[in-house]
Amino acid sequence: MQDSASPDNWLDIVRWNSDGLVPAIAQDAETGEILMMAWMNRESLKLTAEEGQAVYWSRSRGKLWRKGETSGHQQVVRDLRLDCDEDVILLKVEQKGGIACHTGRRSCFYRALEDGQWVPVEPVLKNPDSIYGNQ
Amino acid sequence: MQDSASPDNWLDIVRWNSDGLVPAIAQDAETGEILMMAWMNRESLKLTAEEGQAVYWSRSRGKLWRKGETSGHQQVVRDLRLDCDEDVILLKVEQKGGIACHTGRRSCFYRALEDGQWVPVEPVLKNPDSIYGNQ
Repeated sequence: MQDSASPDNWLDIVRWNSDGLVPAIAQDAETGEILMMAWMNRESLKLTAEEGQAVYWSRSRGKLWRKGETSGHQQVVRDLRLDCDEDVILLKVEQKGGIACHTGRRSCFYRALEDGQWVPVEPVLKNPDSIYGNQ
Repeated sequence: MQDSASPDNWLDIVRWNSDGLVPAIAQDAETGEILMMAWMNRESLKLTAEEGQAVYWSRSRGKLWRKGETSGHQQVVRDLRLDCDEDVILLKVEQKGGIACHTGRRSCFYRALEDGQWVPVEPVLKNPDSIYGNQ
């Protein structure tokens, strides 16, 4: 039973790992394509729900990461899901610009195992230098 | 460049975490539905590629977990993908029995956030007791 007096109860249900994080999978809400997986802490998940746009926790930078803050490739959240073990989040999103990956590809999962090698099988849609304003 | 003299080189490219694990997302190869997320160690990923069926590492049981070994709900792997950071695996699978979740649902991501509560939105297709032979 949920306690209606505690509006953040849904955040307490999530089983954060020892670093206070859970994996969050972003899936294109229309095509079903898996775009990326990143991590969320409690604050980023709360902000994601409040703002309706994906906010992750950057482990490398040690700070909140509003997806698209530099690239413009925001993820508008259409559906937020929790798995049976309460330790993985699924976001169904509208991917702005059609590009989730920092390499300029639609999805981060662009390498397929073929004959014992990881082979890029998805095209680069935009030069990363132009995405991140380095040229 | 890959070293063709080292057949397991593709396993060396994966960036295992401090526990020797990476997250592995299972997606229905036909419908695009995300079925579950579990963990793999080096041996389980190698076996997954060799056997063509998903083999995970059970963190709770501390041993290899051949998906479907009890339930019969194996996952036949159609495509193995690696993400841009080399620390997440994506499996596109044929889900035997049409059920991935131990609750008897198709997908483990059956709870949606609605009005600040996690609400089950996917039907139970089969009683878990009958899946696991407890009745």
